[in-house]
Amino acid sequence: MNELYGRDLITTQDWSVEEIEKALDLAFEFKANRYDHPLNNCLDRRTFFMFFYNPSVRTRQSFEAAATELGGHAQFLEPKSMRLKTSKSAGETIEDAANVMSRYAVGIGIRILETALEYYGQGEEILRRYAEHASVPIVSMAHDKFHPCQGLADVMGYRMHAGKNLKGKKILQVWGKGALVRSWASVQESILINSRLGMDVTLAYPKGYDLDPQVIKWAKENAAASDSSFEIVHDLEEAYRNADFVYSRNWATADFYPEMAKHGVEAAKKKEIELAAKHDDWITTEEWMAKTRDGNAFFTHCGPVDRNAEVTDEVCDSPRSIVYDVAENRLHVQKAVMALTMGKQ
Amino acid sequence: MNELYGRDLITTQDWSVEEIEKALDLAFEFKANRYDHPLNNCLDRRTFFMFFYNPSVRTRQSFEAAATELGGHAQFLEPKSMRLKTSKSAGETIEDAANVMSRYAVGIGIRILETALEYYGQGEEILRRYAEHASVPIVSMAHDKFHPCQGLADVMGYRMHAGKNLKGKKILQVWGKGALVRSWASVQESILINSRLGMDVTLAYPKGYDLDPQVIKWAKENAAASDSSFEIVHDLEEAYRNADFVYSRNWATADFYPEMAKHGVEAAKKKEIELAAKHDDWITTEEWMAKTRDGNAFFTHCGPVDRNAEVTDEVCDSPRSIVYDVAENRLHVQKAVMALTMGKQ
Amino acid sequence: MNELYGRDLITTQDWSVEEIEKALDLAFEFKANRYDHPLNNCLDRRTFFMFFYNPSVRTRQSFEAAATELGGHAQFLEPKSMRLKTSKSAGETIEDAANVMSRYAVGIGIRILETALEYYGQGEEILRRYAEHASVPIVSMAHDKFHPCQGLADVMGYRMHAGKNLKGKKILQVWGKGALVRSWASVQESILINSRLGMDVTLAYPKGYDLDPQVIKWAKENAAASDSSFEIVHDLEEAYRNADFVYSRNWATADFYPEMAKHGVEAAKKKEIELAAKHDDWITTEEWMAKTRDGNAFFTHCGPVDRNAEVTDEVCDSPRSIVYDVAENRLHVQKAVMALTMGKQ
Repeated sequence: MNELYGRDLITTQDWSVEEIEKALDLAFEFKANRYDHPLNNCLDRRTFFMFFYNPSVRTRQSFEAAATELGGHAQFLEPKSMRLKTSKSAGETIEDAANVMSRYAVGIGIRILETALEYYGQGEEILRRYAEHASVPIVSMAHDKFHPCQGLADVMGYRMHAGKNLKGKKILQVWGKGALVRSWASVQESILINSRLGMDVTLAYPKGYDLDPQVIKWAKENAAASDSSFEIVHDLEEAYRNADFVYSRNWATADFYPEMAKHGVEAAKKKEIELAAKHDDWITTEEWMAKTRDGNAFFTHCGPVDRNAEVTDEVCDSPRSIVYDVAENRLHVQKAVMALTMGKQ
Repeated sequence: MNELYGRDLITTQDWSVEEIEKALDLAFEFKANRYDHPLNNCLDRRTFFMFFYNPSVRTRQSFEAAATELGGHAQFLEPKSMRLKTSKSAGETIEDAANVMSRYAVGIGIRILETALEYYGQGEEILRRYAEHASVPIVSMAHDKFHPCQGLADVMGYRMHAGKNLKGKKILQVWGKGALVRSWASVQESILINSRLGMDVTLAYPKGYDLDPQVIKWAKENAAASDSSFEIVHDLEEAYRNADFVYSRNWATADFYPEMAKHGVEAAKKKEIELAAKHDDWITTEEWMAKTRDGNAFFTHCGPVDRNAEVTDEVCDSPRSIVYDVAENRLHVQKAVMALTMGKQ
Repeated sequence: MNELYGRDLITTQDWSVEEIEKALDLAFEFKANRYDHPLNNCLDRRTFFMFFYNPSVRTRQSFEAAATELGGHAQFLEPKSMRLKTSKSAGETIEDAANVMSRYAVGIGIRILETALEYYGQGEEILRRYAEHASVPIVSMAHDKFHPCQGLADVMGYRMHAGKNLKGKKILQVWGKGALVRSWASVQESILINSRLGMDVTLAYPKGYDLDPQVIKWAKENAAASDSSFEIVHDLEEAYRNADFVYSRNWATADFYPEMAKHGVEAAKKKEIELAAKHDDWITTEEWMAKTRDGNAFFTHCGPVDRNAEVTDEVCDSPRSIVYDVAENRLHVQKAVMALTMGKQ
C-alpha cells in the first residue's frame, strides 16, 4: 500500500525523510526508463489542473510534460480567466473551486508568488485552504514560501554527480546579485531538504537579506536531527571554503512585500534592484569556485539562470555545472510525485 | 446506428426527448464507470476545439477533462489570438474558419456571451452560422440564449437525488440578487429541459426580470406536451411552497444588452448591480427552504455560486445541497454528448 | 535508418528534394489513413513545444492536432508568459532555454514574425540560434523569412488535384491587395519549393513589392537545377496567361520593417494599408481566372483568406478552389515532419 497516495506536497518539510527518499528513488527510475516504466501510464486519461496565479518558465513546461508522459493531461489555467472571488470582486470561493475541481481532476498544482499576493505567507495560506477543501492532492508549483519539486530536483542533481550519500558534503547556498528580484521559495525549500538529508549547509548572503526566521529555525532543527550542520555567513571567503556544491541565487529582502503593499510592485522592484546592484562581488566566478574543495565544487542553480549576475558564463558553462541536469530533474521528480500521490493504484 | 452522430447541440430544445434521455443514460454510465466504459476511448487521438469568445471556470475545465477522459484532446482557443473577421477588422470569415476547423477536429465547442456581443441573440446567430458551415458538430459551451450541457447536468443531479421519474416534481427556479450580472443561458436552458421532462416549473423573479418571450412560449408548450405545468410568479411565499427542488440564479434584465451597446459594458453592469441590490429578500435562505415540501427540498445551482447573494452558506453547504454533484455532472454529460455526436463509430 | 531523424526544418530549402519527397509521401499516407497508420503512435506520450512569439490561427490548431493524432501532446507557449532575456529585460538566454526545453520535449516549433522583431531576418537568426543550442529538432511554424510546412501543404494540394508530376505546370504567385499587411514567409517558401519541384513559377506584383533578393536568387537557381523557369512580372495579363495554378497573397513592402522600427507597428501598418489600397486591380477575380490555361486553373491560397481583397468570393468558393484542402494538408504534412524528425524510431 502506497502511503503517499492522496497526500499534498506543499513543502518537503511536510513529508518524512522516508517519503522523500521514496519519491527520489522513483524519480531516478523514471529517468532511467523515461517512457516504459510500469507506472508510466498511471495518469491514463486523468486530468491534472495547473493553476498559475503567476506565470512560469519551466514549471509549466515540466509539469505539463510530466502529466503527458504518465498518460494524462495537465490543463493550463490562469486565474485571470477564472471568476474567483477576491477581496475586490464577487466570484467563486476557494472552498467551491477546490470542491468542484476535485470532481474533475486527480490533482491540482498551484503557483502563487509575490505579485499575486498582498503579504508574505498569503500564498502558503491559500495553498493550505485549497488543501483543506480539495479531496485530491494539492502540489505547490512554487509559492511565496516553498518550492518542493525544485528542492527534490536539486537533490537528484547532487546525487547524479556526487553519489547517493550526501552526508557530510558541504553545500554553499549563496545570494547572487541581479535584477530579477527573486522569490524565497526555491532557496528556502532547498536549505530545508538539504539539511534533512544530512548535507552541511552554509547559507551566505549580504547583511539585510535574511530569510523567513521560521524556515531558518527548521533548517537548524533538521541539521541537528540529521547530525549535520547549518550556518549563516556573510563573508564570501568563508562561504566558498571547502564547498562541494555551490548553489547561487538572487532573492529579495524582507522589505519587498511591505514595499509592494505600500508603493506598488514596480516601485518595490526598483528599490530591490538598486539595493542588489550594490553587492557587486556577490557573483559566482571562477575565482570563487577555485576556493572550493580542491577547487572542484559542482555548480548548481534552480534556474532560470540570470547569467553574469548570479553567476558568470564561464562557471555556468563549465564541466562542473549541473544546471541543465537539475532542470531536467524537475520532470522526473514531478512524475514521481504525481505517480505516488495521485496515480491510479 | 447512432442517430445523434454528427448532430449539433445548441440547445436541448433541438433534440427529441428520446435523444435527451439517451445522452442522460450514457452520462450515468460514464459516472458509474469513469475510466473503463467501452466508449471511453471514442475520441482516441481526436481533437475537439473549444472556442472561448468569453472566459469560463468550469466549462473549460470540464470540457477539456471530458475530451481527455475519452482519449482525445480539447484545444483551448481564444478568438483574441485568432485573426477572425469582425465588423471592425479584416480577418477570416466564419465560413472559412468553420470549414477549416472541420478538417482538423471532430467537433467544435463555442462559448459566446454578453461582452463579446452587440445584441441579445447574436451569439445564437453565430453558433448557427458555424453549424451551417462546419461539417462536424457544434456544441454550445454557453451562449447568450442557451447552455445545453448545463441543463443536462442539472437534470442528472435531480435524478441522482430524487430518482429517474421527475414527473410531478415541483422545481422553483428563482432569481437571486448579486453582483455578477449573469447571462440568461443557464436558466433558459433549464426551464426548457425541465418542462420537457415533465417537471412542474415555477419561475420566480422580481418584476422587470422577464426572460426571452420565445423561450417562455416554448416552456409553456413543453409543459403542455408533457402534461406538466409552467408558471411565472413574483411572490416568494407562493414560489417556495411545496417545491421539491430550489434552483437559484442571478440574471440581468432585458435592458442589459441595449445599455451595453449604448454606454459600454461597465456602465451597463453598474446599472444592473445597482438594480439587483434593491431586491434584498431574493436570496435562498434556510427560512425560505423551510417553506418547501416538508421543508426538505433539494437546493441546486448551476455554479459558480455567488454565496450570500444568491444563496446563504447554510443552504449551500446543507446536506440537501446538490451543487457539487451538479457541477461534476457537467463532465459526465459532456462526455456523453461528445461520444454520441462525434465519437468514433 | 531514417536520415531525417533529429533534423531541423527551418525552410524546405535546407532539405534535399528526396527528403522533401519523403515527407510528402508520408503526408499522403497519413491523409489516406488518418488514425491507424503504423506511425500514428510515434509521439506516444511525448511533448512538442509550440513557441508562439506571434499568435496564429491554423498553425496552432494544426500543430496541436498533429501532435495529438500521433499520440503526443503539443504545449501552447507564449513568450509573454516566459521570462526570456530580451534587449530590454533580464531573463533566460536562448542558449539556456533551448538546452532545458530539449530535456523535456522531442521537438520545438517556433513562430516569430514582424511585430515580435526589430528587423527583417531577426526571426531567422533566432530560429538558427535555437537550432544551434537545442538537441531536438526546431521546426519553423512561420517566421519572417520562411514557412516550410505551408510550402509542403501547398504542394500536396497541387498534387491532390493535378497529379504527382508538377513538371512544366505554370503557377502564378500573385500579390493581392488587402489590409492584413502579411509576412513574406509563405510566399517565399512557396516559390522556393515550387521551383525546386519543377514548376514554372511566375511571381507577379506591383512595382515596389520586391521580396528578399537572396530568396529570389535561390528560386532562380532552383529553377535552373530542375530545368524549369522562374520569372517576375508586373503585368497581370501576362501573369495569368496559361497559368495552371493561381496562388494569391498579400504581402508588405520591404519598407515595413524599417518603418516599424522608426515609427512603431501601427504607423507602419497604416502606411502599408494605404499603399496596398492603391492597387485596386490586384485581386483574383473570375475575369482574371478566365485568362488562365483553358480558363481552368486551380485557385489556391495559404490562408486565412482575406476575401474580396486578395480574391473574390466567387473564385474562392468555386469548384476549382483548393483552399480548404491546402489548409487540411497542414495537418498531414506536419504529422509527417514530426514523425520523421522526432518520432520514436
